[in-house]
Parts: sequence; structure tokens; C-alpha cells
Amino acid sequence: MKKIEVMQNVLEANEVIARKNCELLERHHILAINIMSAPGAGKTSLILHTLARLEDKLNIAVIEGDVASTLDAQKVKNKAKAVVQINTKNMPESCSLMAGMIAKALEELPLESINLLLIENIGNLVCPAEFMLGEHKRVVISSLPEGDDKPVKYPLIFATADLVLINKMDLLPYVDFDVAAFCRSVTDLNPKAEIISLSCKTGKGLENWCSWILAQTRTVSAKQ
Amino acid sequence: MKKIEVMQNVLEANEVIARKNCELLERHHILAINIMSAPGAGKTSLILHTLARLEDKLNIAVIEGDVASTLDAQKVKNKAKAVVQINTKNMPESCSLMAGMIAKALEELPLESINLLLIENIGNLVCPAEFMLGEHKRVVISSLPEGDDKPVKYPLIFATADLVLINKMDLLPYVDFDVAAFCRSVTDLNPKAEIISLSCKTGKGLENWCSWILAQTRTVSAKQ
Repeated sequence: MKKIEVMQNVLEANEVIARKNCELLERHHILAINIMSAPGAGKTSLILHTLARLEDKLNIAVIEGDVASTLDAQKVKNKAKAVVQINTKNMPESCSLMAGMIAKALEELPLESINLLLIENIGNLVCPAEFMLGEHKRVVISSLPEGDDKPVKYPLIFATADLVLINKMDLLPYVDFDVAAFCRSVTDLNPKAEIISLSCKTGKGLENWCSWILAQTRTVSAKQ
Repeated sequence: MKKIEVMQNVLEANEVIARKNCELLERHHILAINIMSAPGAGKTSLILHTLARLEDKLNIAVIEGDVASTLDAQKVKNKAKAVVQINTKNMPESCSLMAGMIAKALEELPLESINLLLIENIGNLVCPAEFMLGEHKRVVISSLPEGDDKPVKYPLIFATADLVLINKMDLLPYVDFDVAAFCRSVTDLNPKAEIISLSCKTGKGLENWCSWILAQTRTVSAKQ
């Protein structure tokens, strides 16, 4: 079937560009983290908190992916070392960032002066799972109001994640969410995935996320 | 670019099948509603409440779309007249239901004995906007914890909706969501869209949603 063949070609071409992105990032000793989630799970809030908490330790750039609007880039622009907004609205694949979009964004970033790149993907639990961008680590945020069945319903994105963040823990008294059942579902799909629960609203747990990032930057530096 | 051409062909082929689905549904005097939202906004909960409240008035069938799992079909199966689960995991387009999938599902439904078809699309605010299924009405659910900026960030799905439901109103005291700003964004994109706020948890507002459905079934019948 023609559509499947084209999709296969697109995935392979994406893989080649992703590898080049990764090589470029490693030449500049930059750790790149691909942050994925459903719409409104808290990607931008997490990035804003990360910038505030790690600005003394790391030089951070952000790539903001959105179908439309520059709302997120505007929120981030005064806090990050550099920001590039990607709008996918009129691109062949609007439902996910792809490696080619990241390659272009990297041309606009001051690679010599940053050591952490946070990539906010399109809010979507399906398409971003399929496209590697050249990142070193893949993070999926699930938020409590979405329900604890998301790993079972969207398995690929959880199966390919290095870290799963459970956000909006402050809403636990008001929604039905079985944290233990959620963690079991993640571990069934992906025994190596780490899991951190936090709340971008209260700040609780953000120190664990920041420690995780710092540990990754050390790992990437050690490889070079 | 090859990908764009193929996508154009896929959309046109989808449109042809969607029209056939619609004709088949109208021959059987069935109103079809395509229910779309981000993951975890409350599509399945809404369908369960609708089945409970309208079972005396309408004969309702449900098509459940999920990337993986039969969780939703299992929840619905004892309440609906008939249920078909579609899993898109290994299909060329896994991020949305498409008209061809609906055509196959319609073959499995007792069309002569139903008058309302609720179609639960894949949890995704991007891809489902592009694919007509043969439905008469398109409904988008936005839930409060997702934030009030979703229409600006995912415009196509809101621009093509007949009705926008604001769900999880019970969480208003605990999250930042400006209902008036959200409604303004929807109306800017789509002045004809109706908006109903409700809570599947408390039941508040569900009577307005059910009245809306009943009004649509009368309109569809009147056309025939």
C-alpha cells in the first residue's frame, strides 16, 4: 500500500537527519531532551520551572513545537538563553516535530554557548512517538486528570521513553487516578523507564526532575 | 514533495468514503456524531452518561477508536445497543479514525435498529481534524486542566466543530482556566460553534448536551 511505503521512507529519512542532529549536538557537548505529552499536560510549565531552577547551573535553549501560535515561545523567551518556535500548521507532518525541523532550528541556536536543549514537542501521544529528533533522552509527561489508562491506550510513546513524569499531583484529591496502577502499566511496557511524580503548581517533586537532568548532563559529558 | 501529494490523495480518497458512509447512515435515519478531544478529556465518560440518559429515547450504537486496547469498548458494551472497537495501532494512519475504518465498522452494526451513532475518535487534537468520517456533527471536548489556550494552539479542530464541550467544570476551583477567554477563542475561529460547559463527574450540564443531541436527531430526520 502506497501510504505505508511513503511512511516507511519518511521514517528512514527522518532517522538519518536525527543521527546528524545528534552528532552536531554532541560535538557541542549539548544534552537534548525531547519532552512529549498530550495537550495541556504541562510541558511549557515544566520548561519554565526548569529554566528558573537550573539557570545558574546550565545554559539552556528551548525549541517550542506547536501546530499554531507563538504563545509558548513568548512565555519562555526571557528565561532561556535562546528560543526557536516551530509551527507545524502547513508542514507535511503537522502532528509531530520531525528531525528536519530540528535541524533547521539548530542553525538558529547559539550552539557554542549552550549545554542543555529542551525540545517541547507537539501536544500529542501518538505521532511524536514515531519520530526521533536526535535527542539523547525522551521524556513523556502524563497528568492526573488524563486518567491512569494512558500507557495502555498509547503504548509506543511510553515504551520508548527514558523518563515518565506524572504531573499535576496537586489534583490527586479531586480526580480518579491510581498512581500504583499507572506505574505498573508503564513498567510492563518499559521496565527501564524511570518515573517521577511532581506538581508544576506546588513545585513538589521538581527537585527530583532537576536532579535527573543534571545526572544526564554528566552522563553525556562523560561520553565525550 | 511526495509526502504532500500522497497526503492529498489520502484526504480525497477519505472524502469519497466519508460521503458513502453518510449516505448509508441517512438511508437508515441514523444521526452520527464524531466525538474528538485530547487524551483523557472525557470522551468515554461522556458516552457512558449519554447512554444512561438517552437509552429510553434513542437506540444508540458506539464505535470506539483507540490506538491500542479494548478498555473503552468493554466499559460501553453493556450499555449500548452495539459496540465496535477499532484499534489503529498497525494501520497506516494510527493517529485518527478514517472513513474506511468507519465503513468496515458500519458493516458490523445493526443499522436497521439504531438511530444514533456515537463515534469516539483517537485522543488527539491534530489528526482527527483532517479526516471526515461521514458524520453529521463534529463535537470537540476540551477539559479544564488542559488550559484555555487550546483553540489558539490547535485551531483546525475547533474551526470545524459544530459543538465544543467544556468538560471537568468541577475542577474550576483548582486549575487556571478562563472560561470567557476560551469561549472568545472558539468564537473567533468559528462563530457558528455552539459551546456547552458540563461536568461528567457531577452531572451538571449533561442535560444541555442531551437536549442538543435530541435537537440534532430531529433535524436529521426532518431532512429525510
